[in-house]
Amino acid sequence: MKARVHVMLKDGVLDPQGEAVRHALGHMGFGGVEGVRQGKVIELDLSATDAASAEAEVKEMCEKLLANTVIEKYTIEIA
Amino acid sequence: MKARVHVMLKDGVLDPQGEAVRHALGHMGFGGVEGVRQGKVIELDLSATDAASAEAEVKEMCEKLLANTVIEKYTIEIA
Repeated sequence: MKARVHVMLKDGVLDPQGEAVRHALGHMGFGGVEGVRQGKVIELDLSATDAASAEAEVKEMCEKLLANTVIEKYTIEIA
Repeated sequence: MKARVHVMLKDGVLDPQGEAVRHALGHMGFGGVEGVRQGKVIELDLSATDAASAEAEVKEMCEKLLANTVIEKYTIEIA
């Protein structure tokens, strides 16, 4: 079973990396970029066969390791 | 208009970061993790109003800056 986790900074938290990308794109002539937010996507191959238990396990992984829940939010997709 | 870009390492390219996450999860007791691949997700706010031109522009951004196309692949979603 595959799980895909998106980890992004919470709204309102300054994203210096996103800002750096926005400036770089501007210097390269891409004028129409109003905002850039950058985060992580993590694809997991799980031996679990049941979607519900897989989601619960991945949620626990996010809470403990994959996301810094003080400043980051995450979403989980099970496929 | 919003665009979301996923940048992942190409298949076959070693992902040391993913391996590190897999080992860490294993040490934390998450035994059922067979593989981990980590990449970037970039959310762009574009002033473009036409989806086709926005996609073409984002593709050019990926080719020039957002992805290292030698070892990375990318997907673009326009919303």
